[in-house]
Amino acid sequence: MSERYTQAYDVYKQKIEQAMRNMIPERPETFQNGHVPALLAEAMRYSLLAGGKRIRPVLLLATVEMLGGSAEEALRMAAALEMIHTYSLIHDDLPGMDDDDLRRGRPTNHKVYGVGQAILAGDGLLNMAYEWMTDNALRYPDHAVRHLRAIHEIAVRAGVTGMIAGQCIDLVSENMEPDFERLRYIDWHKTADLLTAPLLAAGYLCGADDEQMKALETFGQNIGIAFQIDDDLLDIEGDAALLGKATGMDAKMGKMTWPSMAGVEEARKESKELWDRAREALSLFGEDAWFLREFADSLSRRKY
Amino acid sequence: MSERYTQAYDVYKQKIEQAMRNMIPERPETFQNGHVPALLAEAMRYSLLAGGKRIRPVLLLATVEMLGGSAEEALRMAAALEMIHTYSLIHDDLPGMDDDDLRRGRPTNHKVYGVGQAILAGDGLLNMAYEWMTDNALRYPDHAVRHLRAIHEIAVRAGVTGMIAGQCIDLVSENMEPDFERLRYIDWHKTADLLTAPLLAAGYLCGADDEQMKALETFGQNIGIAFQIDDDLLDIEGDAALLGKATGMDAKMGKMTWPSMAGVEEARKESKELWDRAREALSLFGEDAWFLREFADSLSRRKY
Repeated sequence: MSERYTQAYDVYKQKIEQAMRNMIPERPETFQNGHVPALLAEAMRYSLLAGGKRIRPVLLLATVEMLGGSAEEALRMAAALEMIHTYSLIHDDLPGMDDDDLRRGRPTNHKVYGVGQAILAGDGLLNMAYEWMTDNALRYPDHAVRHLRAIHEIAVRAGVTGMIAGQCIDLVSENMEPDFERLRYIDWHKTADLLTAPLLAAGYLCGADDEQMKALETFGQNIGIAFQIDDDLLDIEGDAALLGKATGMDAKMGKMTWPSMAGVEEARKESKELWDRAREALSLFGEDAWFLREFADSLSRRKY
Repeated sequence: MSERYTQAYDVYKQKIEQAMRNMIPERPETFQNGHVPALLAEAMRYSLLAGGKRIRPVLLLATVEMLGGSAEEALRMAAALEMIHTYSLIHDDLPGMDDDDLRRGRPTNHKVYGVGQAILAGDGLLNMAYEWMTDNALRYPDHAVRHLRAIHEIAVRAGVTGMIAGQCIDLVSENMEPDFERLRYIDWHKTADLLTAPLLAAGYLCGADDEQMKALETFGQNIGIAFQIDDDLLDIEGDAALLGKATGMDAKMGKMTWPSMAGVEEARKESKELWDRAREALSLFGEDAWFLREFADSLSRRKY
């Protein structure tokens, strides 16, 4: 990666971390009106501020800047995307869902705070995402419609025809007969939708034209599915210490994945093709897409 | 109740039921892009269309009409409020939360669909509320800022300083020493916030002035806490068959309630005072508040 890319990524990441810390203050009063209860705030911060690459918010900020928009105006929407991602992880880890004990190298939320508080921490992060996105939109009344379009796109991608649909089908498909149509649906919605959301939200915020929206969607969907296939490959070949979670879980849970169905070699080939297709979609933006191009290069080589 | 009131309530209710049915179609395709998976749709419909008084959406539509606004423009926001209410019930009933088997006379969502799908059905309804409110707002671009204000108010009241804060403190307060400050906080946030939300959202949609907003908030908060105290009284004195759920649960769970702490008589007196204070707040609106006035009369005498 170029130094320019590494530096830009770090700046985005620091802004996002700071915004998220500000959104859930560290020492709130216990049950005082207008404050987040201390226990709830702690449970939300535990998962939200646990590190991670912050891929979705970085994608939003970088795409907004690529399109000539203001990263400042998009910052709290970026943090909200990470909140939605984090809530989905907390709920995915619960008993009745994947029932995981470890996430990013630490005990999962419900292992620390109990199932009830973990459910509420997840609900709280999801709802808070919309609370902050609408609050942010009200600071830019001249862009109210642009913000509404972006928030709506995020809601659709996160929702019952998007990420939640993917989680639902993923959950009922354990130990089922392998089926590529089903697998494509799960990867598309469970993973790719929330990676496409920041790209399209950026497009709406900046008033992108139809051709640009189409290119952003193609980029998002291809990196999204490639990302999931790479995840499945890492579950087979990855280093549990680097990943911060146990490997071999997909096989144990009887999950349908690309490598389990088509074999590791075929899955690697498919992933490479998807990354290539994603890069091609960027040609429309020329040199302005330098960050997204390096982003794809970097992600396609990740080891965790 | 006057015939005019009963008829108006029925019309509101029918519109709301219809809007909710349309929002989650009955026979969606299984894992087809752009559709809600059949199982997820069924689990959401099971709880959302289980009947009930539809108090929150009726309050929104009636208040919008009282302020001279369009009920049509507010209809999908009304349905969204009921979605938020329903998601909170599904999650409240889960093991790790209240662990209830019965709701509105039927098995709770997780008893029918399993814990995992019930978590997703709740997440789906919460997220869908924002999906539809933003979609609706985009149909009225001239009112984009008004809609954003209303959606934001709903998000705050439903969120981590509102309803979810109340649920969090409620959950950790089981079997604690009785404490009126704590009890007030729980009633205020767990119940009153989501009953105040439709009143303030209506105010924002219709561009109400500060004095009107204050009166709407006072009405909402007072009926909200009165409603909760009445609920607690019904848990002691009510008819389980009429209520559609087991009574005596608060005592069993060691929940702090007004009647358990101050006695039944004192709780009745407090409730009456709150209903009276709510009615007083309506004087600002004169005869236009006829529906809200009868609404308070009717709710204050409910038996289930």
